Amino acid sequence: MKNNMIRAGIVGVSGYSGLAVLELLLKHPKIRLTYVSAHNTSGSLDEIWPQLANRTKLICEKFSLQNAIEQCDIIFLAVPHTSSMDITPKLIAAGKRIIDLSGDYRLKHANDYEQWYAHPHTDTINLKNAIYGLPEMYREKIKTAQLLSNPGCYPTAALLGSLPAAISMTDNIKNIIIDAKSGVSGAGKKMTASLMFCEVNENFKAYKVFNHQHSPEIDNYLANASGKNFDLTFITHLLPINKGILETIYIQLHTTTTIENMHSLYTKFYKNEPFVRVRKLGVQPELKDVVNTNFCDIGIALNPAGNLIVVTSIIDNLIKGAAGQAVQNMNIMCGFAETEGLL
Amino acid sequence: MKNNMIRAGIVGVSGYSGLAVLELLLKHPKIRLTYVSAHNTSGSLDEIWPQLANRTKLICEKFSLQNAIEQCDIIFLAVPHTSSMDITPKLIAAGKRIIDLSGDYRLKHANDYEQWYAHPHTDTINLKNAIYGLPEMYREKIKTAQLLSNPGCYPTAALLGSLPAAISMTDNIKNIIIDAKSGVSGAGKKMTASLMFCEVNENFKAYKVFNHQHSPEIDNYLANASGKNFDLTFITHLLPINKGILETIYIQLHTTTTIENMHSLYTKFYKNEPFVRVRKLGVQPELKDVVNTNFCDIGIALNPAGNLIVVTSIIDNLIKGAAGQAVQNMNIMCGFAETEGLL
Amino acid sequence: MKNNMIRAGIVGVSGYSGLAVLELLLKHPKIRLTYVSAHNTSGSLDEIWPQLANRTKLICEKFSLQNAIEQCDIIFLAVPHTSSMDITPKLIAAGKRIIDLSGDYRLKHANDYEQWYAHPHTDTINLKNAIYGLPEMYREKIKTAQLLSNPGCYPTAALLGSLPAAISMTDNIKNIIIDAKSGVSGAGKKMTASLMFCEVNENFKAYKVFNHQHSPEIDNYLANASGKNFDLTFITHLLPINKGILETIYIQLHTTTTIENMHSLYTKFYKNEPFVRVRKLGVQPELKDVVNTNFCDIGIALNPAGNLIVVTSIIDNLIKGAAGQAVQNMNIMCGFAETEGLL
Amino acid sequence: MKNNMIRAGIVGVSGYSGLAVLELLLKHPKIRLTYVSAHNTSGSLDEIWPQLANRTKLICEKFSLQNAIEQCDIIFLAVPHTSSMDITPKLIAAGKRIIDLSGDYRLKHANDYEQWYAHPHTDTINLKNAIYGLPEMYREKIKTAQLLSNPGCYPTAALLGSLPAAISMTDNIKNIIIDAKSGVSGAGKKMTASLMFCEVNENFKAYKVFNHQHSPEIDNYLANASGKNFDLTFITHLLPINKGILETIYIQLHTTTTIENMHSLYTKFYKNEPFVRVRKLGVQPELKDVVNTNFCDIGIALNPAGNLIVVTSIIDNLIKGAAGQAVQNMNIMCGFAETEGLL
Repeated sequence: MKNNMIRAGIVGVSGYSGLAVLELLLKHPKIRLTYVSAHNTSGSLDEIWPQLANRTKLICEKFSLQNAIEQCDIIFLAVPHTSSMDITPKLIAAGKRIIDLSGDYRLKHANDYEQWYAHPHTDTINLKNAIYGLPEMYREKIKTAQLLSNPGCYPTAALLGSLPAAISMTDNIKNIIIDAKSGVSGAGKKMTASLMFCEVNENFKAYKVFNHQHSPEIDNYLANASGKNFDLTFITHLLPINKGILETIYIQLHTTTTIENMHSLYTKFYKNEPFVRVRKLGVQPELKDVVNTNFCDIGIALNPAGNLIVVTSIIDNLIKGAAGQAVQNMNIMCGFAETEGLL
Repeated sequence: MKNNMIRAGIVGVSGYSGLAVLELLLKHPKIRLTYVSAHNTSGSLDEIWPQLANRTKLICEKFSLQNAIEQCDIIFLAVPHTSSMDITPKLIAAGKRIIDLSGDYRLKHANDYEQWYAHPHTDTINLKNAIYGLPEMYREKIKTAQLLSNPGCYPTAALLGSLPAAISMTDNIKNIIIDAKSGVSGAGKKMTASLMFCEVNENFKAYKVFNHQHSPEIDNYLANASGKNFDLTFITHLLPINKGILETIYIQLHTTTTIENMHSLYTKFYKNEPFVRVRKLGVQPELKDVVNTNFCDIGIALNPAGNLIVVTSIIDNLIKGAAGQAVQNMNIMCGFAETEGLL
Repeated sequence: MKNNMIRAGIVGVSGYSGLAVLELLLKHPKIRLTYVSAHNTSGSLDEIWPQLANRTKLICEKFSLQNAIEQCDIIFLAVPHTSSMDITPKLIAAGKRIIDLSGDYRLKHANDYEQWYAHPHTDTINLKNAIYGLPEMYREKIKTAQLLSNPGCYPTAALLGSLPAAISMTDNIKNIIIDAKSGVSGAGKKMTASLMFCEVNENFKAYKVFNHQHSPEIDNYLANASGKNFDLTFITHLLPINKGILETIYIQLHTTTTIENMHSLYTKFYKNEPFVRVRKLGVQPELKDVVNTNFCDIGIALNPAGNLIVVTSIIDNLIKGAAGQAVQNMNIMCGFAETEGLL
Repeated sequence: MKNNMIRAGIVGVSGYSGLAVLELLLKHPKIRLTYVSAHNTSGSLDEIWPQLANRTKLICEKFSLQNAIEQCDIIFLAVPHTSSMDITPKLIAAGKRIIDLSGDYRLKHANDYEQWYAHPHTDTINLKNAIYGLPEMYREKIKTAQLLSNPGCYPTAALLGSLPAAISMTDNIKNIIIDAKSGVSGAGKKMTASLMFCEVNENFKAYKVFNHQHSPEIDNYLANASGKNFDLTFITHLLPINKGILETIYIQLHTTTTIENMHSLYTKFYKNEPFVRVRKLGVQPELKDVVNTNFCDIGIALNPAGNLIVVTSIIDNLIKGAAGQAVQNMNIMCGFAETEGLL
C-alpha cells in the first residue's frame, strides 16, 4: 500500500527546519518519505542527527536534481534563501510540487526581495505564481498550488494575531505595533558569535531593529487581506530559550470597543480552524503550551479606555512557524485531513 | 574610625532585595552595617544565605523596633508592602532616616494605593513627605529626605527610558506603549506555583495585563516630571532568567524627528549621570551588560517615518531596580560620592 | 472499529507523568482512552492543561473506583506513592490490569518499602505478584502481568547502563558507582521552595546523598538479574533543565578488558532492543537526543588501565523513565507491536 | 598615592578570563591597572566589552612587548596556551613578575605538556621555576614567585576537594574517581559549533572522556602533595549554565572511617583558609552560593559501609578557577591581605 503513496522529499535536512520536517514526515501516515539531501553532508541520517538512530534507514545524499525529480512527487525545500530560487525553477519545470520554507517566494515584488534579502530575485516568473501558505488565509488557493511559499515564523504569529482585527475593523485601526520575541532556533543552525551559549543565556536584547526581513512580509499580507496599508511597526527580540515566538500586538483604534466584542470577533474568526486556539477571556497564552505543536494560541486584552487592543500570539517557530505549517500545507495540497500527522 | 561611621540597618534580609542590600553594604567603605532582621528567621546570616559564610559575623534577629532604633542611623526596609507602613511611622518618630524598598510610599494618593495594592493606606502623613528616590529626577530632594521611597524596578527602567522625551517633547507625544520583560527574581522569593522551575524555564508569557501595580507609579512620575498625563500603556512579561528587566518603549509623536536629534537629546540629558549609559547610535543594549551592576543602559531607534521613537531601557531589577538604587540614594542622603560602593 | 479496542484509563492526570501518559495515549492507534481522573480537579482537560485544548473532549473527574472499573480494561496509575496501594487491590480484585507508575510495587520486600518510603506497605499480596516493567529484562513476564510496576526514572537508566556488564562480568566487578544527574520534572509538580525557578536556574547541586529511594530499587534488580549483591553507590544531582537523566556509571573490574570487548558486549546485548541505542565507539550520548523520545542511549568508555568501564546512560525521565515505558509495557501486555505509538 | 602603587597589566583582555581579571583589578584598592592588551582588538575597552562603559578610561592595545615591560610591574597573561610561553621568557628576562592563567607552565614535565597540549614546550627553563599558584598548598612559595602558574579550573576544585584526604589518609586510599561538571564559560569565548546556544541549552553530556588536559594536572599535584601516585579517574561533563564547576569526588578507602572524622579532617585542614568553606555535616554546597565569588565550598558525605568518602567541591570557574585565584596569588606575591579586593 505504501507503494501507491505520494512520495515526499526534503532538500536541506541538516538545518533545524529540515530536521523538523523530517521528524513530522517520519510519523505521517499518508506519505512515503523517499528522498533527503543536504548541502555538505551525506550518509546515514544519524550521522547528522544522532537522535534519528533506529528511527529511519534513509540515506542522506548531496542534492542531485535528477534524483530529486525521479524520486519525489512533492519536495520540501528547507534551504537558505537564494538557494531555493536556484533549484525551484527546475523542479517546477519537471512538474513537481514544491513547499519552499525559505524566504525566496514570500515577497511578491522582486524589488522588495532585493531590498530586504540583499540579493536580486532571479525567478520572477515563479514568484508571481507562488501561493503564500498561511492556511487560515489562503486555504482555497493552497489546494492547487504547485509552488507553495511557506510563511516566515514571525509573520505567521503576526498575521494570525492581527488578521481578524485588520479585516473586520480595517478603517478603525490607527496603527499597529508588534513587539516580537523569539527563541534562538529561529536563527537557524549557522555558527554565529552572538548566538554562543554564554552570549544568549541569562541575556535578552532587541536585534535587527527596523531592519528585519519579516517586516515587509507582514506588511504585504496584512495589506493583501484587508485592502489597507497599515502604519505598522515590528520589533524583534531574542529570548534565551530554544523554541517559541510570542508577539505582543498593540492595535490602536480610532474609536472604542469592548473586550467582549474583541474576544468574540477572534473566537468566531477562528472557530473552525484546527490549529488556532483563542484563549478564554482573561487568560494569557504561554509558550510552553504550543512548543512542539502546530498550534497558534491567542490571548485578547483591551486597555481600560477601550481603544487599544493587546493581542498576544504564540507559536513554535519550527512547527507552526515552519515545518508544521509546511506539513499542514502539504495535507491541504494533497487532499488529506488537514491535521493528519500533526496532532 | 569605623566607630564614627553612619550605622545602617536592614529589615527584611531574607528576601532577594534584602540580600542584595546586604551584599552591597558589606562592601561599602563609608558605612557600618550594625543591624539586620528578618520576619521568620534569626541566627547566623549564613543559615539563611549560605553564600554569606566567612563574609560576615552579623547575627540576624527577628525585627525589634527598639533594637533597630538604638542600633541604626539609617534603615533599609526590604519588607513586603503593608509591612513597611506598619513600621515606618515609629522609626520616623524616633528620628531615623528610612530607605523603603516596598511599594508603600510610592503612590502619592492614598486612594491610588488602595486601588492597586488592595489595602487602605494607614500612614498618609508620611506618605505626603516621602521623597521618590530616582536620583536622576529628584537628586536635590533626596539629599535631605528623611523618608525615601525607593522606586519600583519596572518604573526605574520606564522612567529613565522615557523622561528625556517626556520632558523635552511633551506636547509632541501622542502616546507611549511600554512593553516590559522581567526576570523572575522581580517576583520575590515567595513560593508560587507559576514560578516553579518547570513552569518558567523554556517558557514566556504576558502577566498581570492592564493590572500591574507599577503602572500608576510610572504614570504619576512621568506626569510629575512633564506636567502632562500621557496616554500610557504598560504590559509586563516574564523572562526565563534570574535577573534583569528590558523595556521596549514606543513613543508615538505628532510630528517627525531625526534619529540624531533623539540620540543627542538622550545623550545630553544623561551626560553627567554616573549610572545611565546611552548606547551609541545603532547599538542595542543587552541585559548581560547591566546584570550585577547599578547601570541603566539605553538604546535609541526611530522608525523610517520619523514619528515613532523606540527606546530600549535595561537594568538589573535587584540592583538599579532595588538595592543598588537604594544604596545610591543612601550615598546622596549621607553626602558620600554617589558611586561609592557601587562601581 | 474504535469500539472494539482496549479501553485505557489514567488516574492522576494532573501530574507531569499523568500528562505524559495522556499525550502518548491520545496518539496511540490501538487503544481507546476512556477515563481520566485527578485528585483535586475535575472538568475539561484543558482547564488543567491548557495545551490540550482542541485535542481531546475527555472530561477529567475526581477518581471514582466504580467508574474506573466500569470504563476501563487497563488502568495507568500516575499517583503519589501510598495512593497507589490504596487503589490497586480493588482494581485487581475487579480483574483490571494495572500499570502503576508510583513506587509502591517496585521493592519486593515490604520492609525495604517501609524504610525508604517511610510508610508501611499495606498490600503485600499484590506486591508479591507485581511484575517489574523493564522490558529489556522481563519482557516475557510482562506479557501476562496483571499488576505491572513501572520502574523509577533513575533505575531505568541505571539498569540499562549496567545490566550487560553485571550479567556477563558478574564476578569481575569490584564495585559500581553511579553518578546521576536529573532534570527538574523528575521531582514532580508539587510546590517546593528549593524547586522555585531562581533556586534551580544557573545552579547545580547534589541532593538526597545516600538517601534516595531509587537506590534500593537499583540494588534489588541488579542483584535479581546477576545473582550478586554488588557494592553499589548511587548519588543524585539536580540539573537546571526540564527533562532528562544522564548517569555516569563507573564499573571497577578486578581484571582488565578492552574497549572493543566492552562495546561489543553492550552492542550485542541490545541488538534487538527497539529503544536502546548503544552509541558508536568514541561517541558520547547527549540528553537532547533522547528528550521527548522513549530511547535510552548508551556510551561506552574504558580507562587506559583497562579496569574501569565508564558507561553513560541517558533517558527522558518522563518518557523512557515513566510514561513511555508504561506505554511500551502496555504494548507488550496487549500484544501490540512494542513500538506502537512510541516512534 | 596611586602613583606609588604596584602597576599591573593584563595581556588577553578580550577573553572571559581576561575580562574577569580586569573587573577584579578595577575594584582592587592596592594596585594601579596601567596596561591592557588583546590579540585582535584595540581601542576603548567598552568597544570590546560594552559593560565597561563609564567604568574605565583604559585603552586596549594590540600586545607590545616593550609597552608591557615599560608600563607594568606585574603582568597577568590571560592568553591561549602556547601564546604564553612565547611571551613569558621575554617578560621574565625583563624582571617582570608574571601570573600566567594559561596551561603552559602547569605540568612540570615538558613531555607531559607535549602529550596533553599537542605542542612541544619551548620554555623548559622557566617551566622548572614556575610556582603552581594554589595558595592552600603553596602559599610560602607563591610569596616570592617570579613566574606564577595559575591552576586550571577543574584542578582547583579537584585538589581542594581531595587534598585533606590525600595527605592525611594517603595509604588508606584505594582509588579516586572525580565526576566533574562545568558551566560553559570554562570553554572560553572561541566560536565552536557544539557550544551554540541550541546545542547546549536543555542538554547535558560527558566530553573529552579520558582525554582532558586537566587530568594530568590533578594527578601531578596530588602526587606532589601526598608523595603517592593515586589511581585517579577524571571525567568531565558540560552543564547548561554560564559559570560554575561542581565535582563529585569518590574516594574509596581500604578501611572504614566515620563521617565525623572525615568532616573534622576537612574542617581543620581549612580552618584558616579565607576562601575555602567546609559546609556543615549533612549540607550539600550549591553552585549559586559561590558563583561570582572566590570561594570554594565543600560538602562531605560517607557511604553507610564507611569506606567511600563522597566530597562535593564547587567553585566559580572564572573566579576561584581563574581570575579570582590569580588576584589572590597577586595579593600573596605583593604582600597584601590575601582577601584584598576579593570579598
